[in-house]
Amino acid sequence: MPLEVLQQAAAEMTDWHGSGMGVMEMSHRGKEFIAIYEQAEADFRALLNIPAHFKILFMQGGGIAENAIVPLNLSRGGKVDFVVSGSWSEKSFQEAARYCQPLLAASGKASEFTALPAPGSWQLSADAQYVHLCSNETIHGVECHELPDLKALGSAAPLVIDFSSHVLSRSVDWSRVGLAFGGAQKNIGPAGVTLVVVREDLLGHALPACPSAFDYKLVAQNDSMYNTPPTYGIYMAGLTFQWILRQREGTLQGVAALEQRNIAKAQLLYDAVDASSFYENRVSPASRSRMNIPFFLKDESRNDAFLAGAKARGLLQLKGHKSVGGMRASIYNAMPLEGVQALVDYLREFEKSHT
Amino acid sequence: MPLEVLQQAAAEMTDWHGSGMGVMEMSHRGKEFIAIYEQAEADFRALLNIPAHFKILFMQGGGIAENAIVPLNLSRGGKVDFVVSGSWSEKSFQEAARYCQPLLAASGKASEFTALPAPGSWQLSADAQYVHLCSNETIHGVECHELPDLKALGSAAPLVIDFSSHVLSRSVDWSRVGLAFGGAQKNIGPAGVTLVVVREDLLGHALPACPSAFDYKLVAQNDSMYNTPPTYGIYMAGLTFQWILRQREGTLQGVAALEQRNIAKAQLLYDAVDASSFYENRVSPASRSRMNIPFFLKDESRNDAFLAGAKARGLLQLKGHKSVGGMRASIYNAMPLEGVQALVDYLREFEKSHT
Repeated sequence: MPLEVLQQAAAEMTDWHGSGMGVMEMSHRGKEFIAIYEQAEADFRALLNIPAHFKILFMQGGGIAENAIVPLNLSRGGKVDFVVSGSWSEKSFQEAARYCQPLLAASGKASEFTALPAPGSWQLSADAQYVHLCSNETIHGVECHELPDLKALGSAAPLVIDFSSHVLSRSVDWSRVGLAFGGAQKNIGPAGVTLVVVREDLLGHALPACPSAFDYKLVAQNDSMYNTPPTYGIYMAGLTFQWILRQREGTLQGVAALEQRNIAKAQLLYDAVDASSFYENRVSPASRSRMNIPFFLKDESRNDAFLAGAKARGLLQLKGHKSVGGMRASIYNAMPLEGVQALVDYLREFEKSHT
Repeated sequence: MPLEVLQQAAAEMTDWHGSGMGVMEMSHRGKEFIAIYEQAEADFRALLNIPAHFKILFMQGGGIAENAIVPLNLSRGGKVDFVVSGSWSEKSFQEAARYCQPLLAASGKASEFTALPAPGSWQLSADAQYVHLCSNETIHGVECHELPDLKALGSAAPLVIDFSSHVLSRSVDWSRVGLAFGGAQKNIGPAGVTLVVVREDLLGHALPACPSAFDYKLVAQNDSMYNTPPTYGIYMAGLTFQWILRQREGTLQGVAALEQRNIAKAQLLYDAVDASSFYENRVSPASRSRMNIPFFLKDESRNDAFLAGAKARGLLQLKGHKSVGGMRASIYNAMPLEGVQALVDYLREFEKSHT
């Protein structure tokens, strides 16, 4: 998280804006917290240009809970098309079977999830209740760079995206989205807050088995206060939204500034990997993630030495997910270009000293 | 929340114990957060003397989500006995109908929830999967001071208690409990963490409709990390646990010290109300809550003047819940005796100046 956000939180811990209370001590129904909540919601809407006919919900349980909550609310027990492009969408596909008839519209499994299946190849059902897509897969490093126009593909179903791991790193074309959900812990704030953005016409169809606390319609009607919301997490998310609003790159600001910065950061790292015969990234260029960049040493017997050298330089958490192996650099919004440059410098140096 | 807990959190915000990271920046699978988690769990177990055959789960969604999650996990779709002693247990009773056959074993409604229905009068089913009791009702100010021995009442079912609003204010007799759940926001920490204490033999019976993220068995098997846990909330809860461990009253310490303090605080306020002919508390003495004390001005036309005078003295949040009216003092663990004394002084002064 950005240092200035943490410093502001520390400074306001026992007294928020002269109220005599810290945010953790506020009633969620008091005017102070309502002001925090409304500002956070308005800033998130502004940052992503979310149209007025979408509701913004602050919920709990993260993306894994949403794997159940989305079909509980949207599937009506019918067919749902899934695009499986990595581990996260595979989990969503499996969980949905509790509530509906999940259909595999496309899978990248045969190519070991090294590319997003091309939208033109998706087998979409005529009567699906929605189409599920994880728009950034953290483990496989696969990102969807242009949301599909489902109508043009012959489907009348709304598109549901799991944007947990790249929310606020880029703009979203809401004309192509019915619902987007994401846990806060990558680009927004502390774990324990889930953001759900849902088109109003999709509310009100929850299955009888849907817990009231997770019924989008009840949550929306109660401004995310049907149950007590995670107040401090919402406050921290709000501070991060304000930080993003302050970001500038040339004439760009907010998410557009971060998007340009994220493109530059990813390019720097992919170029270094591609230019080398020592490392490789196996993801198809058109599907490469700007947030999560898995790469391999061609001689994997050097993995331990690579990680030890990285750690000695303060380059942490570079070990790839156990299901994939190799290395992975996660370069979320809060990672500056200098951090990526330090990694690239290390890549070159390690290669040089081992060839 | 205790001031010293907030001050410690502020001091550690950008650097926890020299790790170079704030708690919000930690991976929930890293050794630093695992240490925080394990300490919090061990301290909570020690504070409440929780036996080894109970699992402690850190979940999300609060008590209102648990109203669905408990029957999803424990009801097996069968009969469940509910003791309805106020608004919270009534909500639990209503929500359970999505998943099981909730039966009204007892209700305090006829007496306007001014007493906990006597255990001897409960109509318990021979084949209930569990018995639900809210052991402290915040709105009606009704507390269960001795957990019932269901076996002695002829029921073989486990007792489930919602202890959200008085957890850690007193000891718990675990020999009489199968499961206890509570949101953290009253006595523990920030909203967004739910504590569930569940006897191991009750795990593994979730209904197919139970979301994986809320299946107690999966949560227990994954040490509350099946989905990403609310890391910062768990850290804050842990700081509060440490604060409670440091509390002393004479030779008592920890929860026993707080319990003695809470008895004294409640006694002070009830005595003042009972001694006056100007105020009244309508709850039967044996069922009176130590945490939430609703009271009425006998002449309710003076309510606004009472609240205005209280506010001028910094005595806040005294308005009773809209469903009950009157006044309510919530005197949770963090409220010192001096705070209650200030309220009692005001009660006397207001009475004197209005009679």
